[in-house]
Amino acid sequence: MISKEESKMLWEHYPVVLVLGGDGFVGWPTALRLSQAGFNVVIVDNLARRMTDVELGSNSLTPIRSIWERMATWNDLTGRTIEYEDFDVSDNYHRLLTLIEKYDPMTIVHLAEQRAAPYSMKSSYHKRYTVNNNINATNNVLCAIVESGKDIHLVHLGTTGYYGYSDVGMTIPEGYLPVKVDVDGETKEIEIMYPPNPGSIYHMTKCQDAITFLYFNKNDGIRITDLHQGIVWGTQTEETKLHEILINRFDYDGDYGTVLNRFLMQSQINHPLTVYGTGGQTRAFIHIQNSVECIELAVLNPPDKGDRVRIFNQTTECLNVKNLAEKVSKMTGAPIRYYENPRNEDPKNDLKFVNDGLLNLGLKPITLDDGLMEEVMNIAGRYKNRCKFDKIICTSLWNKERQVDYEGVDKRSR
Amino acid sequence: MISKEESKMLWEHYPVVLVLGGDGFVGWPTALRLSQAGFNVVIVDNLARRMTDVELGSNSLTPIRSIWERMATWNDLTGRTIEYEDFDVSDNYHRLLTLIEKYDPMTIVHLAEQRAAPYSMKSSYHKRYTVNNNINATNNVLCAIVESGKDIHLVHLGTTGYYGYSDVGMTIPEGYLPVKVDVDGETKEIEIMYPPNPGSIYHMTKCQDAITFLYFNKNDGIRITDLHQGIVWGTQTEETKLHEILINRFDYDGDYGTVLNRFLMQSQINHPLTVYGTGGQTRAFIHIQNSVECIELAVLNPPDKGDRVRIFNQTTECLNVKNLAEKVSKMTGAPIRYYENPRNEDPKNDLKFVNDGLLNLGLKPITLDDGLMEEVMNIAGRYKNRCKFDKIICTSLWNKERQVDYEGVDKRSR
Repeated sequence: MISKEESKMLWEHYPVVLVLGGDGFVGWPTALRLSQAGFNVVIVDNLARRMTDVELGSNSLTPIRSIWERMATWNDLTGRTIEYEDFDVSDNYHRLLTLIEKYDPMTIVHLAEQRAAPYSMKSSYHKRYTVNNNINATNNVLCAIVESGKDIHLVHLGTTGYYGYSDVGMTIPEGYLPVKVDVDGETKEIEIMYPPNPGSIYHMTKCQDAITFLYFNKNDGIRITDLHQGIVWGTQTEETKLHEILINRFDYDGDYGTVLNRFLMQSQINHPLTVYGTGGQTRAFIHIQNSVECIELAVLNPPDKGDRVRIFNQTTECLNVKNLAEKVSKMTGAPIRYYENPRNEDPKNDLKFVNDGLLNLGLKPITLDDGLMEEVMNIAGRYKNRCKFDKIICTSLWNKERQVDYEGVDKRSR
Repeated sequence: MISKEESKMLWEHYPVVLVLGGDGFVGWPTALRLSQAGFNVVIVDNLARRMTDVELGSNSLTPIRSIWERMATWNDLTGRTIEYEDFDVSDNYHRLLTLIEKYDPMTIVHLAEQRAAPYSMKSSYHKRYTVNNNINATNNVLCAIVESGKDIHLVHLGTTGYYGYSDVGMTIPEGYLPVKVDVDGETKEIEIMYPPNPGSIYHMTKCQDAITFLYFNKNDGIRITDLHQGIVWGTQTEETKLHEILINRFDYDGDYGTVLNRFLMQSQINHPLTVYGTGGQTRAFIHIQNSVECIELAVLNPPDKGDRVRIFNQTTECLNVKNLAEKVSKMTGAPIRYYENPRNEDPKNDLKFVNDGLLNLGLKPITLDDGLMEEVMNIAGRYKNRCKFDKIICTSLWNKERQVDYEGVDKRSR
C-alpha cells in the first residue's frame, strides 16, 4: 500500500502506459500488473466485451465487477490509481490523439480488438464488425502515434494463428523466416515475414495488423512489438487474486471460451468435455499469469529505434486437444463427447514454436500443471451456478459446407 | 447501335457484371468496354473521386460529364443501357447484398477503392479514410458474396506496388514465389504468397486486401482474380473516344496524376517536367486501353472453382522515370526540373515482372509509342485552359523526415 503522496509522485515522475482494451480478459490483469510494477496506467476501453455478453446472452462465469468498482478496490488495496477513459479506439481517433498528447505515454499496449475466432464467424455482421474494429483500431493507434510526433513503443497482442496450422512441419520461427530464392539462376538467401495463413476472420485481422506494423515501422520508424500469443488458459493472476472484486473474466461459452478452460469448467458441471472434430489438433498455450508477464517484459524491454518490428511467440507449450481432454477426463471422471467441427481446418496437425525471445527476456514458463488446473476447477466450481447451459456448445460455423455437415448430424443442444 | 428490343433481350439473357467504382478513371472505361462486349453492366459508385476533387480544389483536366449524361449518351450511341446505383460499398453492406441478390451477377469488378498513394499520405485523416474505405469495401464485397450463396467471380484491381521496389533483383512473379526452406535440417520447396512490401498507406491496403482474398478463397472457395496493375497512362479508350460526353478523367495534379500523364500534360502548358527525387526509379506501366482489356480478359476467363486466388501482373513494360522525362523533353522541348522527393523510397531501383498470365489470355500489349503519347498531349493541349497551376506539385509528404528535407529546400509552388 502506497500513500497518497507516493501515488501523486508516481504520476509526476513515472512513465505512463496506455492499456487499450484494459477491461478485458488479458487487459484487466495486464493493467493491474503494470500498475503494480510502478507504471501509471491509463485504461481505454469501450466495454465492448461486456456488451457482447449482452448481445449473446452469455456471461463471464466469474462475477466480474464494473470497471469503476475494480479500480476503486485496486486503489483501496494498493494506494495506486488507474485512470480510465471510455471510448472506442476504432472510431474516436481524436480522443485517442488527445489522450496521447495529454499523457505522453512511454508505451501503448494495444488489446482493443475483437479476439474470438468463433464470434468473428457467426454472420456477415460479425465478420464485418471484427474487420472494421480491429483494422481501424490498429491503424488509428499508429496514425495517432505518428501525428503526436512522440517516440512511443507499441505492444500489440497478435496470435500464433497468424502462422496457420498446416505447414511443412517446421518449427515456427518468431515472425521471420529465412528462405532461399532463385534470382536469375543464382540462389540468394533472404529473410521474409513468415507467410500468413489465417484460419478465421479474426485471425485474418491479425495478419492484416502485421502488414500495418510492417509499414509504419518502415515508413515512420515506430517501435513495435507484436506478441503472437497462443491460447490463454487460467483465469487469475497474482494481482486479480488479491480481492474478489478484482476477479478476472472466465469465458466458458462456445464463442469466447478457450479450450482448456472450457474442459475444466465442464468437468465441474457434469457436462461432457466438448471436443470439436477429431481433437487431433495441436495448439499453442500460455497461462494468463505468463501472458501478463510477457506483456510486462515487452514493455520493460522495448526494441531500439530503427529496429524492425519485433515479433515474439508468446506461448509456453503446444498441446494436443484430445490429449488435454483425456487428461481432464482422467483427473475428474468427466466423459468426453465428440462434436462435429464447426471450423474449417485439418483434422490433425503438429505444431512447434520457437519462443526464445521472451525466454531471453526472463520469462519463467508456466506449463500444464495439476495444481493450476485444480485452481481453475475450483473457480469454476465456486461459480458454476452462474453457468448458462445453452451457451456451452459452439454454434458458430465457418462456412456453408460446415452448415450442411452439421445439419446432417445430431444437433444436440443447438 | 442495338434496338430497344435487343437491349431488353440482353438484360434478360446475358450475364450481369457489377462494376464497383464504375465512375472512376479505370471504372468508367471498364464499364463501357464490358457493356460493348455484351455484358449487362451495373455501376455502383458513390462519386467519391468527384468529391475528392471538391476537397482538394483540383479537377480532371478533361471536362468529364455527370454519370447521368455519360450513361444517357452511351445509350443514345449504342442502344445499350448501363444501370447505376449511388452508394458507398464500404459503408452500405445491405444495399450491396440486395443488389447482388437482385442482379445475380456473374462477376463483380471491384474498383471501389481510394487509389492514390500521395492522397493516402496527406494527413492522418487521409490515411484513416483510405484504410477504412479500402479494407471495409473489400471485406463487404466478399461477405456479401458468401452471404448470397452465389458463385460469383471477383475481379479486383491491385497494384504492382504490392511487391515493393527494393528486392533482391529477381524478376517478380505473378503473386506466388517458390522458395526453399529448412525444415529440421532438410530443405523443402514451397510456394508462398510473395512477401508484401508496401510503399504507402494506399499500397498497404492492397497488401491487406491480398490477405482478405487468401482467406475467403481458402475458407469459402470464392473465385478471385487479383490484378496487380502498374501505373496507368493515357486517357481515352476505344469506347470513351466515341463522343466527347464519354471522355475519361485526366488527372494532372500532384496527388492523383500519374507520372507519364503528368509529364505529357506539363509539356503542353510550359511547366517544367516534375521529377521527384533522382528519377532513378523504375516503374511498371500500362496504357488505359490495355487496362480495360485486361479486366475484360479476366472477366471472360474466370478461374475454376477450387483454384487458389489468381494473380496477374497487369503491366506491359517497366520504364525509368528519368528516361521518360528525357524522352518527353526531347519530343516537346520542355525542360526537366528535379524536386525533393516527398516519398520515402530508394533513389534507384530495377524492376522486372512476369506478365504471362494476361498475355496467355490474349492481351496484345500496348507499349510506349510516340503516337499514343501525342494523343495524350493533344488531349492535354485541348483542355489546358482548365489546368489549376497550383495543383501541379505534389505536396503530400511521406513522413516527418521528408518534411524536414522539404523545408530545407526551395519550396517552389507549395
